[in-house]
Amino acid sequence: MDDVKRFVENDRFAKHLGVDMLEYGNGRAKASMVIQDHHLNSAGTVHGGAIFALADAVFSAASNSHGTLAMAINVSISYFKAVSSGTLTATAEEVSLNPKLATYLIPVFDDEGTQIALFQGTVYRKKDGVGQFVK
Amino acid sequence: MDDVKRFVENDRFAKHLGVDMLEYGNGRAKASMVIQDHHLNSAGTVHGGAIFALADAVFSAASNSHGTLAMAINVSISYFKAVSSGTLTATAEEVSLNPKLATYLIPVFDDEGTQIALFQGTVYRKKDGVGQFVK
Amino acid sequence: MDDVKRFVENDRFAKHLGVDMLEYGNGRAKASMVIQDHHLNSAGTVHGGAIFALADAVFSAASNSHGTLAMAINVSISYFKAVSSGTLTATAEEVSLNPKLATYLIPVFDDEGTQIALFQGTVYRKKDGVGQFVK
Amino acid sequence: MDDVKRFVENDRFAKHLGVDMLEYGNGRAKASMVIQDHHLNSAGTVHGGAIFALADAVFSAASNSHGTLAMAINVSISYFKAVSSGTLTATAEEVSLNPKLATYLIPVFDDEGTQIALFQGTVYRKKDGVGQFVK
Repeated sequence: MDDVKRFVENDRFAKHLGVDMLEYGNGRAKASMVIQDHHLNSAGTVHGGAIFALADAVFSAASNSHGTLAMAINVSISYFKAVSSGTLTATAEEVSLNPKLATYLIPVFDDEGTQIALFQGTVYRKKDGVGQFVK
Repeated sequence: MDDVKRFVENDRFAKHLGVDMLEYGNGRAKASMVIQDHHLNSAGTVHGGAIFALADAVFSAASNSHGTLAMAINVSISYFKAVSSGTLTATAEEVSLNPKLATYLIPVFDDEGTQIALFQGTVYRKKDGVGQFVK
Repeated sequence: MDDVKRFVENDRFAKHLGVDMLEYGNGRAKASMVIQDHHLNSAGTVHGGAIFALADAVFSAASNSHGTLAMAINVSISYFKAVSSGTLTATAEEVSLNPKLATYLIPVFDDEGTQIALFQGTVYRKKDGVGQFVK
Repeated sequence: MDDVKRFVENDRFAKHLGVDMLEYGNGRAKASMVIQDHHLNSAGTVHGGAIFALADAVFSAASNSHGTLAMAINVSISYFKAVSSGTLTATAEEVSLNPKLATYLIPVFDDEGTQIALFQGTVYRKKDGVGQFVK
């Protein structure tokens, strides 16, 4: 198992929330999450923080997939629609990649294919390889 | 127990993550979260999504504390420092309140008093009272 | 000349900056701006505020193109590359449209086709028709 | 005249818009702008881009006041109230300062003291001194 794979699989927060990482590599990543009771907010719909967490796991996998440590410095998220059941899916696109900074755009969809949120995040890229965190 | 209290206590996502809501009312709120293993990312520091979730719980409690349903439409978060243990605290300030929209600023601190993130969020305020979601 | 056309052409800030609105309608818009000396910042590259202004003019034209007044409530912009000459182009895509809220994604390109910025903005949609502002 | 002063005074975009830089230094800055016709949008109120530009000039002065070049990488702005006349004022507070990154919070007020917008911006700090751009 390579370093990136070990690194991505070590995301304990994503596991705690039930994020299912489907694929990642070359600055891209895709994950889904089956909505469960522990994702709901006070109004009975999926919490903004849970939608963020799914997108954030994808953001982390995509930005670290180059093999060097990427740390989130800024994220903006817009929410479009409340959902309360089904499966959510998020896919990262690498909009920009420089030696020090990279930006990702991550739409989140419900299982009818309606976009429910849009996540835009920027990372600072360190020189450390991701392998050192998982040995 | 009044409607707002019942509503805030019904936040299942915040409970799942271990958010401890300390106080709320009049557009303000404060919460803390003891860092646990399930908050950690692949690099062994607190996940951006976990920091977001703490601030988001405070955002929800503050914006719904007026008694009418507030739905998040946009959030921006900046991260300043990685932390891996201790207790995080977040406090919401209501920057602007209109009949339809309100904006909150929520700094997050570690237990040395260093600001580790800044969350800025806007809600759309519906006419529904929060009570109807918890009866 | 219809109301939307009159409304878009009444954008005095866009004119002052030299924004050339190329097309708009049905939630979309496209504009370009030839970089001039008055767009430059202290370091001699195009000011973040000038790039924002180009995208913002497109955001306004796209969001008001439905004929009802749209007011910006939140924008996030990421910058990828400094440029100092040539022509910038920005195109709006309507990511979400609800009766009260709409969100647009507006990438900005230099004349080599490199994306230099990404603008994500949300408007609040009022009931007023845009025509009343230009009669 | 020192390098920082020369650098800040070289902001041609700020001059073109009529930004009056009142003070800057040690990570802080303050500026005002008298609303003129060329700041107005299609609806006759101050353009979101003009409010952004005022805050952005303050952001640039504050972040470059340490003497090393700071480049904007991400900004989020929320708008609270439409204004159409008077003077706007913006003040930057340095929320976080690291060797490579710094974040500023910049509220914008009208001349009745009402906060009309909140700007949150992050810069990447290069090693170059600002002096080399103004010699």
